[in-house]
Amino acid sequence: MQAAEIDEQFPVVDIDSPALEAARMLAEHSLPGIVVVTADGQLYAVLPASQVVRFIVPSYVQDDPVLAGVLAESTADRAAEKLGGKTVRELLPQHRLTLPAANADDTIIEVAAMMGRLRCPLIAVMKQGKLHGVITASRLLAMALKCGLTEQAWTAVVAGFTTEWGAVSAWQFLEQSSDQTRSRA
Amino acid sequence: MQAAEIDEQFPVVDIDSPALEAARMLAEHSLPGIVVVTADGQLYAVLPASQVVRFIVPSYVQDDPVLAGVLAESTADRAAEKLGGKTVRELLPQHRLTLPAANADDTIIEVAAMMGRLRCPLIAVMKQGKLHGVITASRLLAMALKCGLTEQAWTAVVAGFTTEWGAVSAWQFLEQSSDQTRSRA
Repeated sequence: MQAAEIDEQFPVVDIDSPALEAARMLAEHSLPGIVVVTADGQLYAVLPASQVVRFIVPSYVQDDPVLAGVLAESTADRAAEKLGGKTVRELLPQHRLTLPAANADDTIIEVAAMMGRLRCPLIAVMKQGKLHGVITASRLLAMALKCGLTEQAWTAVVAGFTTEWGAVSAWQFLEQSSDQTRSRA
Repeated sequence: MQAAEIDEQFPVVDIDSPALEAARMLAEHSLPGIVVVTADGQLYAVLPASQVVRFIVPSYVQDDPVLAGVLAESTADRAAEKLGGKTVRELLPQHRLTLPAANADDTIIEVAAMMGRLRCPLIAVMKQGKLHGVITASRLLAMALKCGLTEQAWTAVVAGFTTEWGAVSAWQFLEQSSDQTRSRA
């Protein structure tokens, strides 16, 4: 399986669109993150939902997290109002993060290794310089388990034979047959 | 709003349960992560989905990510088989990570600041030493927007008045009335 075979279409936000729109998209569809693109459709950033949450944290609290504890509850509740009028661009981290982007022909393990290393719940898949799709952590696990489980299902079938047939199991039988076939060939 | 008012019930996995079960839970329900508890129900870890994905990455690849690129596609596809028989405990990072746990009376901003800082898509909410619930990034955004949007909706209503009533807007009128009320008091 290659990255381009398992990726999915995913909503993207323009870097100059309202930050509120990005936050609402994540909230309504319970997305694990968003893909930010430039006006000409180029991949600019992939933001995990945990980083979009920072949009509602006032910058002085981001600089000094202890301050979060001294904000009155009513002030904290109204923090999201500050999103109004701001664009996604204004809320992106100043230092651009490593782009979690895989190539179309990367394997499932290459994507998993990148996801784990960058702690990003979604990876953009690029094909010929363009965004082809997105692979989320749950999609990756589902595809990996699909392969793994096919194998496991087969093991379970064989185990069933073993129990029913006693000492000379179907598995051994098949293995022996296969050896015999091989030696005959 | 306090953390315990907006948290949700969430499936948890026992530290000694099969790793495959944790991976399947995430894959089937598209969860952003899982809460790992000990046999006596104590919170042990919160694993983002991006870290559970590492369960399928062979340890020699985790140690040297470049190796991911040299694995054959068929080997990569069958990596999930290795999960079979392993427990969650065996796959947790050796160095225990900072526990993303909030207090029941923490504000929405305290939770958001912690989520952003730890890059964790879900925060466990503790009440009297016990797990009370979980707040995901999308839940947090939804609740923050709900407050923000109520205010915005009100602003929109006022803006509507302004447009309809021309130069002396309803907003100015209400503000003046309120001032008059205050000065009378």
